[in-house]
Formats: sequence, C-alpha cells, structure tokens
Amino acid sequence: MHGNEPLGIAVIGTGRMGADHMRRIDRVISGARVAAVADTDAERARAVAAGIDGCTVHTDPAAAMAAAGVDAVLVASPGPAHEAALLAAFERDLPVLCEKPLTPDAASALRVVEAEQALGHRRVQVGFMRRYDAEYVRLKTLLETGQLGRPLMLHNRHRNVASSPFFTSSMLITDSVSHEVDVTRWLLGQEITAVTVHAPASSSGAPDGLRDPQFVVLETDGGALSDVEIFVNCGFGYQVQAEIVCERGTARVGDGHHLVAQAAGRWGGTITQDWTERFAQAYDDELRAWVDTTRRGEVGGPSTWDGYAAAAVCEAGVRALEEGGRVEVELAEKPALYG
Amino acid sequence: MHGNEPLGIAVIGTGRMGADHMRRIDRVISGARVAAVADTDAERARAVAAGIDGCTVHTDPAAAMAAAGVDAVLVASPGPAHEAALLAAFERDLPVLCEKPLTPDAASALRVVEAEQALGHRRVQVGFMRRYDAEYVRLKTLLETGQLGRPLMLHNRHRNVASSPFFTSSMLITDSVSHEVDVTRWLLGQEITAVTVHAPASSSGAPDGLRDPQFVVLETDGGALSDVEIFVNCGFGYQVQAEIVCERGTARVGDGHHLVAQAAGRWGGTITQDWTERFAQAYDDELRAWVDTTRRGEVGGPSTWDGYAAAAVCEAGVRALEEGGRVEVELAEKPALYG
Amino acid sequence: MHGNEPLGIAVIGTGRMGADHMRRIDRVISGARVAAVADTDAERARAVAAGIDGCTVHTDPAAAMAAAGVDAVLVASPGPAHEAALLAAFERDLPVLCEKPLTPDAASALRVVEAEQALGHRRVQVGFMRRYDAEYVRLKTLLETGQLGRPLMLHNRHRNVASSPFFTSSMLITDSVSHEVDVTRWLLGQEITAVTVHAPASSSGAPDGLRDPQFVVLETDGGALSDVEIFVNCGFGYQVQAEIVCERGTARVGDGHHLVAQAAGRWGGTITQDWTERFAQAYDDELRAWVDTTRRGEVGGPSTWDGYAAAAVCEAGVRALEEGGRVEVELAEKPALYG
Amino acid sequence: MHGNEPLGIAVIGTGRMGADHMRRIDRVISGARVAAVADTDAERARAVAAGIDGCTVHTDPAAAMAAAGVDAVLVASPGPAHEAALLAAFERDLPVLCEKPLTPDAASALRVVEAEQALGHRRVQVGFMRRYDAEYVRLKTLLETGQLGRPLMLHNRHRNVASSPFFTSSMLITDSVSHEVDVTRWLLGQEITAVTVHAPASSSGAPDGLRDPQFVVLETDGGALSDVEIFVNCGFGYQVQAEIVCERGTARVGDGHHLVAQAAGRWGGTITQDWTERFAQAYDDELRAWVDTTRRGEVGGPSTWDGYAAAAVCEAGVRALEEGGRVEVELAEKPALYG
Repeated sequence: MHGNEPLGIAVIGTGRMGADHMRRIDRVISGARVAAVADTDAERARAVAAGIDGCTVHTDPAAAMAAAGVDAVLVASPGPAHEAALLAAFERDLPVLCEKPLTPDAASALRVVEAEQALGHRRVQVGFMRRYDAEYVRLKTLLETGQLGRPLMLHNRHRNVASSPFFTSSMLITDSVSHEVDVTRWLLGQEITAVTVHAPASSSGAPDGLRDPQFVVLETDGGALSDVEIFVNCGFGYQVQAEIVCERGTARVGDGHHLVAQAAGRWGGTITQDWTERFAQAYDDELRAWVDTTRRGEVGGPSTWDGYAAAAVCEAGVRALEEGGRVEVELAEKPALYG
Repeated sequence: MHGNEPLGIAVIGTGRMGADHMRRIDRVISGARVAAVADTDAERARAVAAGIDGCTVHTDPAAAMAAAGVDAVLVASPGPAHEAALLAAFERDLPVLCEKPLTPDAASALRVVEAEQALGHRRVQVGFMRRYDAEYVRLKTLLETGQLGRPLMLHNRHRNVASSPFFTSSMLITDSVSHEVDVTRWLLGQEITAVTVHAPASSSGAPDGLRDPQFVVLETDGGALSDVEIFVNCGFGYQVQAEIVCERGTARVGDGHHLVAQAAGRWGGTITQDWTERFAQAYDDELRAWVDTTRRGEVGGPSTWDGYAAAAVCEAGVRALEEGGRVEVELAEKPALYG
Repeated sequence: MHGNEPLGIAVIGTGRMGADHMRRIDRVISGARVAAVADTDAERARAVAAGIDGCTVHTDPAAAMAAAGVDAVLVASPGPAHEAALLAAFERDLPVLCEKPLTPDAASALRVVEAEQALGHRRVQVGFMRRYDAEYVRLKTLLETGQLGRPLMLHNRHRNVASSPFFTSSMLITDSVSHEVDVTRWLLGQEITAVTVHAPASSSGAPDGLRDPQFVVLETDGGALSDVEIFVNCGFGYQVQAEIVCERGTARVGDGHHLVAQAAGRWGGTITQDWTERFAQAYDDELRAWVDTTRRGEVGGPSTWDGYAAAAVCEAGVRALEEGGRVEVELAEKPALYG
Repeated sequence: MHGNEPLGIAVIGTGRMGADHMRRIDRVISGARVAAVADTDAERARAVAAGIDGCTVHTDPAAAMAAAGVDAVLVASPGPAHEAALLAAFERDLPVLCEKPLTPDAASALRVVEAEQALGHRRVQVGFMRRYDAEYVRLKTLLETGQLGRPLMLHNRHRNVASSPFFTSSMLITDSVSHEVDVTRWLLGQEITAVTVHAPASSSGAPDGLRDPQFVVLETDGGALSDVEIFVNCGFGYQVQAEIVCERGTARVGDGHHLVAQAAGRWGGTITQDWTERFAQAYDDELRAWVDTTRRGEVGGPSTWDGYAAAAVCEAGVRALEEGGRVEVELAEKPALYG
C-alpha cells in the first residue's frame, strides 16, 4: 500500500460479525476498503460483497488473502477456523485483526504464538474491543496515574438478556468471562494464576441444564483478585460493569455514568472542559449525516429557515437584555419550501 | 459525483472549526474528501491542505467551489462571510453544510432564505450539531412517542469554563443561547414568540463589563416556556443540560448519565439490550486504530500472547467449574516478542 | 417548666397537621408532652386527645393556653386563625411554634411582627421545615464555607402529584412557592425585591381554570436570581429540588442523591466517614422499635438464634481464612421458639 | 411498667456504644428513660449517669437489673461479658436489647439459645441495626414482593476508613463481615452453609500483618451466593453497599442514591409521592429543635419577620401572576429584634 491509498482488507468470514466489520470499513471509518471476502458459504459472501466496488469473493481464505489489492486481513470466521487463517496470513506476512477468541483452546493458541515468533515480528491484533471502550480507557488511564494506589480487587458484572440456544455451561467462561480475563490482565498488567468458580442454583430463566449465573474468582501473580458475575440469561438488559478497588480509592465504569471514582472522602467524576470533547461525536455524526444525504442527492438537517429563526430570536433577546422586559419576536412568513 | 466516488468537498474557512472539519473528512468518516479549501489567509489554507492528496488551495470561496472535483461546500468562515459564500454556492447549485450562525443577523438570514426559495429547492444544512447529539436525539425520540404528554417547560443550562477575550454581553445570546433557541424550536416543534432576559449581578469571574451569567426565558407559539441559564465564565467545566417538563413526566439529558426520565412514580433510564449497542463505538475505534497503525506499518493492541493467555485461563476456569475448587493456571514462558 | 420535666405543649388545631405534630410529641421525640388541645371541632379534638394522659380539651385556644401544665404553644389551625392565636400566646408570653403561613397576608403578618416587638423579645418559630431538612442544611453549610464563591442563581423545582380540589392559581404562589421564598431568603441571606411570573399554557392534568404550572423569577437585594418551577398537578411524584449556581461552582439537592456539587472540573459528593453517621437513623429506629414492642409486652427484631447463627458462620469464616479453601458451617437444630 | 409510664432501662456497659444509647434514650426517642447503669469502671458510669434524673449507678450488672424502676435491659458491655449479662436478665425475665455480637463464639451463643428456650419465650433482640436501615428495609420489601424473582447472588461491599489498633485478621470476619452474615440470612431468609475466604495481597495502608482486604464468599441452603468485600483500611470513607441479583432483575442500596433497581430493560428508583414522606425527618427535627431550645429558654429557627417577609413576597407574586410583568416587593423596615 502506498501514500494515501486506502488499506485493502480481506475479510475472512461473513457472518454477523464479519458483515458488521465490512459495514464499518465501507461506511463508517476512513482510510480502508474491503478488497476481498472469503466464506465457506459462497452465497452469503457474494451477498454481503454485492454493494462494494472491486471486492472479490472467495471460499478459500488463502485465496482471498492472495487477491489483488489486499494489504491486511480481518479474521471473523468461527473460532475453530482461526488457526488456519492466521497461519495463512503469516505465510504472506500480512497484518491481521483477529476476532476473539484467538483460537478455541490453549494448545492451538500456543501454536499461533510460536508461528508468529518464527515470523520474527508481531502481526496480530486480537479483537478484545473493550480495550477501546472509552470508559475502560479512562479507567486504565486513571490507574496508570497511580493516584488511587496499587489495585487490590476488581469486581466485574457481565450480564446478557438471553443466551444463544447452543450455549453450554463452559461457554459462560470461554465466550463471556474471556472478556473479563483480558480486561483483568490488561487493566492490572498482571497474569492470572488461579481460578475458582462458585455456581449458585441456576436461574429458572436459564435453559435446562445450563449453569447460569456463575461467579468466578481470578487470582493474579501481583496478588490481586478479580471476581466476575457472569449471568447470560438475566432477562433485563446487557450490562458490563467494573469496579477497581485500590489502596486509596475505587473507580467504576459501566454504570450509566462515565467513570465514577471514590477517594479521600469524595465520590464523583470529572466534568468535560470543552465543547469539542462534549460534542465530538455529534460533530462526527453531523458531518457523516450530511455526506450521506448529499451523496444520495438529498438535503436534511437544520434548514436555512432554522438559521433565520434563530437569528430573529437572538435579535429579540439582545433587545430584551439591553432594554429590559419582554420583547416579542417577529418572524417573516414561513415559505412552503421549509415544510 | 458518481457511484462509489467519495464526495468532493470545498471547505470555506480554515480556522479552528474549518480545520477540525477537514480532519473529520480526511481521517474519521468514510465517503468524502477535501477537494479544495479557501481562506483569506492563504498561508493557513496551504498549511492545513498540505497533507491532503489533490486538495487545491484558494483565497476566493467561489474559486474553491469551481475547482475540479467539488461536489459540495462546507462553510466554516466567520459569520459575516457566510451570506456571500452561501449565495456563491447557490449560483453553482451546490449542497452546503453551513456552520452556525447562518448569518449574523435576521435581515441577512432572511435574504439567504429568499435566495434559496428562488433556487426552488433546499440546499443548506445549518450546523446546529446538537440535533445530532445522541442524548438530545433520545430526548426528541421520547417526546415524539407522546408518553410524557405535551411539553410545558424546558429548563436549559449552558456553561463554559471561560469566554473568549472579545466576548460581549449580547454574544451570550447570539453565540451561546442561539443553540438553545434551536434546541427549543427543534425539540418542541414550535416557534419562539417572545424573550425576557433576567440578569443577576455578574460573576466576579467574568471580565469587567460582561453581563455574565444571564437567565433567558423564551415563550413559544405552542404556549410552552423555555428557560436558559447561560454562564460563560463558570470556571469549573463545560456543561450543556436540558430537562423537559411534560404533562405526565420529565426527562433530562446532559447530566453525566444518559437520558433520565421521571413518570408514574419512577425515575430512571433504559438499559442497553445488546452488546452491539453498548460497544458500537468501541468496535469503530478498534477498527480505526487497527487501520491507522497498519497503514503506518505498525502493530498495536491486544497481541497473540494476550489471546493465548485468555485461552489458558478459560481452560482452567472450565476445569474449576466442572471439578470444583481452585484450579491453577499454567502458562508457557512469555516470548520476548510480546514485551 | 423545671429540670427534667417534659415541655407541656398546647396544640391549637387538630386537623391533619396538628394531629401529626401531636403524634410526634407523644410518640417520637423526647422531652415534651401534649398538655392541652384546642379545636373549634370539639369532637375531633377529643378524639385525637383520647390516648394522651392528662391532656385537656378545649374549643378556645386561649383556654388551652391557660390550662395547667402548659409551657408552650404549637399553632396548627388554619392560616386565618393564626393571628388571634399568636396574640393570645403573646399575652401569656408563651413560646410558639407556628405552622406556615405566619398569617395569610402581609398586613396581618406585620401586625404580629409589631406585637412581638411590643413584647420585647422573640417568641415565635415559624414552621418553615425545609430549614431542618438534612440536604438543605448541607447546602447552606456548603454555601457558608464560601468555597463555591458568591451565589448568583438558585434554580428550584417544586412538584406535587395533584392539588387539592380547592386550590386556586394564586395559591400556587402563597401555599407552594412560599417555601421557595423562605428557602431563597434563608440560603442567600438576602431579601427579595421583585417578582415576575411566567405562566405557560396549563397542563391538561390541571383542573379547569387553574394556572398550573407556573414559573416564578425572584430577584434579591444581593443581585441574585431565584427561579421556581411550581407544578402542583405533575402526576408522577412529589419533588423538591434546588440547585445553587455560584461564581466557582454549583451544588444541588433533592435529586435522590444527597448533595452533589460541581467545581474545579469535578462533580460529586462526600462519602460518610463513620458508621455512627451512616447508620444514625437506623440506631434511633432500632431502639425506638425495641422500646415500643417492649412496652407492648412483645419481642421482635433479630433473635438469639440470629446471634448464634452469625457466630457459627463467623467461626467457619475464620477457619476458611486461616486454612484456605471452603469450610462448611455446622448449626445446631433450630428450636421451635425461633419460628 | 404501667400505662403511659416510660420504660425504665438498665444500661449494662457505658463505653462509646452504651453512652450513645443512653443519649438516645434520654434525648431522642420518646417513651423510655435510663433507670440504672452498670459498668466495671464505676467512675465512667457515674459520669455518664450524672445528668439523668433518678438513674442509679452500679458495678454489677445484676444489681442494676434489680434496681427500682427497671423494666428492661440494654447490654452494651464488651462481647465476652454478654453471656453473663444475658443469663442475669433471663433470671429476672427481663426483655433485652443486646448489642452485637450476641457472644464472641458459637458455643457460648448456643448456651444463650438454650437458656432462652428454658425460659420458654423470646426475651432478646440482638443489635443487628442494619435491619432497621431505611434502605435495607426497602430492599427487603422489594424482595418480598417477588417481582424480581428468586434471589441468586448478593454482592456486598463493607469499607472502613481505618481499623482500630487492636484489630486482627480474623476480626475482619467476626466484627465486620458478621453484619453481612446477618444481612444475608435476613434478606434471603436462608441459612449459610459454607464459607470461602479469598485474600489478595494486603493493602500497604493496612497495619503490618493484617490481612486486609479480604473477599468472602458465603453459600446458603437455598443455593444462593453472597460475596463480601471487607476492607477496613480503605482510607477514603465508610461504605456499606449491597446489590441483590435475582432471576429477573437486580436492586442495590448504599450507593448514595436510595434503592436503585434494574429490571425489564430499565434502571431507576421510585419517587416520593408525598411531602409527609419526603420531609418526615425534617418535621421531626424541626419539632425536636423547638422543644430543645424552648426547654433551654431560648428561641431559634425562622422568625416572625421571616413569616412576614414570605407573606409580602407572595402578595407581590400574586399580583405578578394576575397583572403580568415584574412586580416590586415592598417590605417594612426590619426591627432590630430580628437581627
């Protein structure tokens, strides 16, 4: 890839997650394009690739990686297919974003580690997306300042409305708690050394035979504890919460607020200092909406009339400020053009 | 513009706001590119255009609009220059995103309204970006369900840390309250008919002679009231809050939570139902980070080792679940590659 | 009254408020007793005085004040009867707690002021009970530290589920906003100099002809503003909220939290430092419950069995701490006595 | 005890807790008086009994219980002295409020259980005061409605600023977690069957050798789990929090809010429906303040002038409502009497 050319990506796997990543590459973020897709289900692959200029369709991941214009690989196929796809990418020395889990078990994951070592440089980013969540990032940033002291305990809640039909008791750990495993390692910068699982009587809302909820206690080589409530049929919502307890205070995220810290006799959070921070997302969305409607040949959003009405009201407001009392607003008649 | 070609945009004005919009077009959102820029300060224009492929630089807005590849115009020049830029865009019948204010006064704004009418179709989206803020959008959506009944009052707070040196008492209304003027009109779908301004003794934190804070009461043709605390030298943070009071309940945004409603004896909000909603932004940011580092030839984020460690911990967890008790985690030695 | 004798109180008026105060004197607080009651409705007075030892019943307030053992007067009759009751109490130089309003209008209130002056010393405490609310007290305490700077604005919300059938538009001010009038004067330590009332179109939830809600703006001789949303048929709950905006920060109460302050880039509150503070009320209620059940010859609350079970679990816990692993709890069989 | 006579209480132990209970009996709640005190430290007993009419002083608990006018016993001596005091009270068949712990170990507690059984009726209320905390009571009430379904897990946090110098690792369980042991049994109505203690590396804020914090997992005979973070040297505050996780929702207390529940896609709490509920405590405190100042021959609180000023402002408000616009308030000159 050269200069300002967008990054050409081969997407391996076009199920729910793969298709969603393709939408992101195509419609949301700048600087990348889907150059090729591969799926064992060729029809599904063709369907999702249909609207994308110059995107070739394959059933073999390696073929997709070899296609013209491919600079990088996004692996979103089922877990058991990851090892082969990763090794194929390593053969072409291509950068990879690999959805979690890296592979379904430790032995195969270790083979991937060894293959990347053989390559001699890192090529893989694993899809632990919580590391990119704004609240978790703020939590990590706060921890790194050291102002709360050394972390002692991390309390995690992970709740889903309902589990998929094929979910098993061990998948609560391998599919769900695996996120908290990474969060614990990443936030604390420590390896996990032991696991205890406490399982209360299962909820009557869980499918027959599924041990749900479970309560997992992780110990780390830094002497910290991380406990995880995992409850995949809680019925009421999707919730991911974390509270870190340090020597001099605590901080929590995922509670509907942003980060809330407790230290030195006070609880609370920080206040945005700037409109560019508070409305950053609104500006992005405004511009994206304008570009999208304009490309479709349409016009939307606040109209010229809205701009005029605001000006007229502000003029009356300035008079009210200067002269005191109540000032009436006079508007021209609204043209039909503005509905 | 044709097919999948990105939208070519002429950016008029390359100050703080213009440059920030250019960054968004170039780096953040998909489907658009900066094709031309215009600024009376040619040097500044050249500087911000430097890194952008095929972006031509102009001092005359009309010349920028006439440049090759220009499909649409973004006006981010100072307010007094807007009218001329808008009329120039109308001459070429180009779609425009015009930063607020549309123009600095009602008379000139009305001239733009009339020019767009002469054109016969809407071409302008005005930059009232709060209409794109997720919290305000949720507030409007809730109002439109009708479940809270007819809106009676809207309480607004608008606070800045400190005002610019050149800020005048009337600019609290024309530059700041103008946002609440639009929010009031948009949320209620009503025109504003009268304005009263109450001004307490000014804060000692405000520059000499500036009437700050002010308290503005707007009346609408639907019989609603909208009050605005505007305080541009509050010192402690940037805050934009709104509470709508309806016949059967209230709802507020901007409080650090998302939308909080009160009705039928209860206060509270909704819980996300799905990880795609809760982590939508994290997925976008993850992919953007990967594309950006990859284009720079770098590798970041969670590593293969992180994927392996998670697999090993989960395997121990499954054993702990199945066998009871505490299970120790066994990890291979960590290769130097993973730092 | 002498030494440890309880204060003998004559209660004037035995309607809802009077009867509730009698319950408080008789059952809740220490050091006082109802010595006499007066009500024009003799039957009602007799009924509420029935269970109280040595409480005499009168139709004439002055007679009640003259009864044996009366040391002080609590006036809870309708507002128009207050002036006469207060003057009667002044004649006997008795201390008075007078429910709000002092009297229904400024002229009669001024006559009471003059009569108390003639007496030469203060005898009256007016029933503005918000000054005794823990949250308002914390707000006032915070203001008095000066750390937020001079107060500029006070935003008040005052909402009732529904108004009484006889409520009139002016009673929203005289009966409801009168609380915020006192709160404004008390919190700011300033007199109110002017009033503006903005009234939106009335809610369809309000009785025909009632101007509800109203929005009142008070100005003070210290240059502060205090605005009040009064909405007596809001339907969803009873809410009393206040946010003070000062030169360097804000603080609010009544929001379901305790006091929440904003200053210097942070929002939040304080954390209790001590269990005596956190559970002060629980200790009072525990002891009151024990005294009340014991006086009735009953036994309630946590039992000896609960004390034993806790001891047994804690013993197992100490072993689990010392020896590691999971320790089972062994309990004796539960005697029938403990249900 | 007969009729309206206050309950005469013998207080055993006049340390911090005993003295505080004496203050409550004497000054706060109605219907009880301290008739006798006993303490091995006779001087301390005399000192705290000094201001109380007719309170006799003893060094032997049994003597205090035998004193004239004693109807009931409050045991607040150190835990090892409880068994003897309880047996002495049983001999006189007196009702007892016994501070926690009932006794320091399960064997002695069981002896008390057996002695009470021999008596044939319950005589003891144990001082687990959290059962009287308004938030815990609301949590239990909510659980009993069954609307959240069966309880599965209870997450508890229990944090103290700093521990006493004599605190040992096992006292974190026997003195602190004992509260959560009772809360778990009481909220769930289940007995605890097993305990596991996880102890992270101790905080550097804890005294040398103290295992602090600890993380305790309790299992119940109903198949529920209750986990407890106990951290007695957290440094930043005193916090007691509980979140119950049920089959269809969760509810938590102790978070600065009142009870917050999550169910059916929503989070939030209830809104007070009535001023008698919202300001119940303020009314109690107002009346108590008036009684206390009056008994001291003083006058405090809102004055006649405050009542007059409110009336004058409300009159101006009514005019502003009826006539529109801004109405100035006219006040008489303030008499010196009102400071």
